[in-house]
Amino acid sequence: MASPAVSAFEQLCGFTRETAVLESVQGVLEWDERTYMPVDAGEYRAEQLAYLSRLIHERRIDSRLGGWLDELETGPLAADPHSDAGTTLRQLRRDFDKRRRLPVRLVEELTRACVLGQQVWVKARAANDFAMFAPALSRIIELKREQAMALGYVEHPYDALLDDYEPAAKTADVARVLEGLRRELAPFVAAILDSGKQAPVELLKRSYPVAAQEAFGKVAAAAIGFEFQRGRLDVTHHPFCTGLGPKDCRITTRYDEHYFPQAFFGILHEAGHGIYDQGLRVEQYGLPPGTYVSLGIHESQSRLWENLVGRSLPFWEHFFPHAQAAFPEALRGVPLADFHFAINNVRPSLIRVEADEATYNLHIIVRFELEQALLTGELSVADLPAAWSGKYRELLGIEPPNAANGVLQDIHWSAGLIGYFPTYSLGNLYAAQLFDAADRDLGGLAAQFRRGEFQPLREWLREKVHAPGQCYPAAELAQRATGQPLGHAPLMRQLRERLGALYGL
Amino acid sequence: MASPAVSAFEQLCGFTRETAVLESVQGVLEWDERTYMPVDAGEYRAEQLAYLSRLIHERRIDSRLGGWLDELETGPLAADPHSDAGTTLRQLRRDFDKRRRLPVRLVEELTRACVLGQQVWVKARAANDFAMFAPALSRIIELKREQAMALGYVEHPYDALLDDYEPAAKTADVARVLEGLRRELAPFVAAILDSGKQAPVELLKRSYPVAAQEAFGKVAAAAIGFEFQRGRLDVTHHPFCTGLGPKDCRITTRYDEHYFPQAFFGILHEAGHGIYDQGLRVEQYGLPPGTYVSLGIHESQSRLWENLVGRSLPFWEHFFPHAQAAFPEALRGVPLADFHFAINNVRPSLIRVEADEATYNLHIIVRFELEQALLTGELSVADLPAAWSGKYRELLGIEPPNAANGVLQDIHWSAGLIGYFPTYSLGNLYAAQLFDAADRDLGGLAAQFRRGEFQPLREWLREKVHAPGQCYPAAELAQRATGQPLGHAPLMRQLRERLGALYGL
Repeated sequence: MASPAVSAFEQLCGFTRETAVLESVQGVLEWDERTYMPVDAGEYRAEQLAYLSRLIHERRIDSRLGGWLDELETGPLAADPHSDAGTTLRQLRRDFDKRRRLPVRLVEELTRACVLGQQVWVKARAANDFAMFAPALSRIIELKREQAMALGYVEHPYDALLDDYEPAAKTADVARVLEGLRRELAPFVAAILDSGKQAPVELLKRSYPVAAQEAFGKVAAAAIGFEFQRGRLDVTHHPFCTGLGPKDCRITTRYDEHYFPQAFFGILHEAGHGIYDQGLRVEQYGLPPGTYVSLGIHESQSRLWENLVGRSLPFWEHFFPHAQAAFPEALRGVPLADFHFAINNVRPSLIRVEADEATYNLHIIVRFELEQALLTGELSVADLPAAWSGKYRELLGIEPPNAANGVLQDIHWSAGLIGYFPTYSLGNLYAAQLFDAADRDLGGLAAQFRRGEFQPLREWLREKVHAPGQCYPAAELAQRATGQPLGHAPLMRQLRERLGALYGL
Repeated sequence: MASPAVSAFEQLCGFTRETAVLESVQGVLEWDERTYMPVDAGEYRAEQLAYLSRLIHERRIDSRLGGWLDELETGPLAADPHSDAGTTLRQLRRDFDKRRRLPVRLVEELTRACVLGQQVWVKARAANDFAMFAPALSRIIELKREQAMALGYVEHPYDALLDDYEPAAKTADVARVLEGLRRELAPFVAAILDSGKQAPVELLKRSYPVAAQEAFGKVAAAAIGFEFQRGRLDVTHHPFCTGLGPKDCRITTRYDEHYFPQAFFGILHEAGHGIYDQGLRVEQYGLPPGTYVSLGIHESQSRLWENLVGRSLPFWEHFFPHAQAAFPEALRGVPLADFHFAINNVRPSLIRVEADEATYNLHIIVRFELEQALLTGELSVADLPAAWSGKYRELLGIEPPNAANGVLQDIHWSAGLIGYFPTYSLGNLYAAQLFDAADRDLGGLAAQFRRGEFQPLREWLREKVHAPGQCYPAAELAQRATGQPLGHAPLMRQLRERLGALYGL
């Protein structure tokens, strides 16, 4: 006997799951575009994606959603906001209201400005000419301000944008945590440089045949718990992870025969994202309890496996003999200690995506501070390159010789992704805190890693982080899993322990 | 200044092109399912495809289509039925009326019966038990009779079903042509067997490394005119060709290291389909003038390149040195004549998909005759295995030892594909007739092939066969290209010339 409330809930969920079918179809098309699609097929692929986007957008602002939500929000299913039903209602309401708050005109203008922005950015970066990009960026900033106004905020306009990537996070909280990190990290990096020690990175640049890299990478991905019967690894230019269904997660990488870390740590990183995707509850696919909670938490899963596991000594105490067997030419006779030091090399550099684990966060802090200042108008677009250089000098001790290696290096701003960058560092911070908690709960992970046992950690993450989906906001989810609010101490302690030891600090 | 008629035409075409976007998206999902999809992802993929099917079906019977067609059919755009606009109106009307004539209940029952039918067929074939499959087949035949009644026909209920695959073809005409073919082909095959000559097929079963097969197959496919910048070759279990957009054609194959013909002629076959797809007019994509005209014509393009080109001596006079370089272990010292005889081996066998070029058509004639008799009720499902054996004895001189190698070998009937088989032989007949005409028009293809020149033939086919799309019905298209109505003489003459010479007839 279905009560009317249950029936409206079923309709709401059925409708939402159908939208998710279309989104997953879009995912298949995007994956294909970035892996196998023939070169000439791009134009029609854009048409296919645009048509699906339109269908999806129409469904996500469909007024029937509002009707079902109105009816259900006063009923018993909404009583517990952390139950699956309560989460579904809460999060669908959030999405529906956010989307309906944006005027159609603004959405269209933003789409146009960002398509244009990316085109101009590609040219400006190639020409190494910030002035060429400045008008497009000014227009995007202006529209993002409008977007923040339309969405509404209490403290800071940046809150409204951040919320798209890290729901419920507040700029002030993120700033406080990153400020704490910065205060300890910048001097720590300086001390590493002052140590005069150099990691033997040359050994990573020997010949690592691609076929062996692929085989070894797959073994490692499977060992840490990525399930290949419901996933794949393919090759692409800009690696990513995407879920195309409840049992279909695709990860990608790119190989450089003469630089081992690129593909290997890339695979661990994407496999970490994939393990999160595979840990979401299948029966909740397409609904908020079966959807990832935030980009920060997503990134915490990739960073945890890539860095805290994959660059740890115990991990390589297990895997190094296998690596030596896979790459005899490059690694025969190499001591484990040298290899481990090489993959933990710290060196300030200009390009974020090539940065090491420690300095990476300094790149993020630069962007986070600059985009807030742009949004409030404290900083003008014209003054951006100088501000960029100043912050790099201050935080990393180096300055870009030109715009291409500085302010023009990332695609994000040209695509309107303002508020996205801090989720990378939130990921690193969450990762360290989760790792510490799992280490406590599981009685010492190092010994397990040495034996090649990664399943206990994966199961702990599955239970505490993956399976809840959106039942708790990211910060609350992490607090429940770790017993602590987010802070910089766990990350700093782990960096000090591992890197400090290598650099004799 | 858009007249109202033009405006309705634009709406009609816009709507139809959007439906084509959804169909092309479905194509991407099916291609992925059959090439790369992880094993566990099948269940959700079925959900994605079912949802898209529903959207597509709703659009194809949308009453707005009827309204636009009603308005336009009395206007100037319909005046020339072979113009692009006239073809669009004629063929969209045809599709719309056919789909609307089928009761929803019948469509649903057919879908259910065929899903069930295929499941039972898989089990019955594995168990080698026709009785297990008989009830499902009876039900399908019954529903196909109902379908023929609902669609309507003048002469033969089979006409109504054939029309789905070979539009406008009549059973009586097909029967007459195939009867002519059978009268000459059966004794010709018997004479080959009586010749006592044996093709040296052993040399095709040596070691042909898969990577070299792939590289060599791609070279050959590109040489005959398949364009890889808007196409791909991948691996699958049951090879196919599919168009995923106006510049995105995917072909597939499977490799057997110890049997060269499987992948190589498979690639030429699928590339032939692909060259047709790539020869359709891009700007008419999604509309009838940009769509293939019939399965018979489609198959003519695959068979032409696979057999009439790919098994010809001039083709190998050009390619054999390349093959010897690609497969030195298998082909060093092998005379071209031996290789050419081996790839033209004729030997009656039980399994259609493994049949040689000559006996293949006899397999088709058996099925074509049996399915007509089943549909009219002249033959009962219970008597089908005996009738099958009788016809194989009569036409091929051999009898299946069991149902799995006989009446249960093909998936078609279990999937409701009744009326499909004859298009395979129509393809062979059209291919030979088109080849003869091109040979005449282009002043001797053999000399061109010897020089590795295949573009003149491809351009001839593009102009005469591909570019017209559905502007003429298949039979008329071929008559215009060749100056002759369809007959068996060209195919028989070509088989006699090539195979007769090899077997000393």
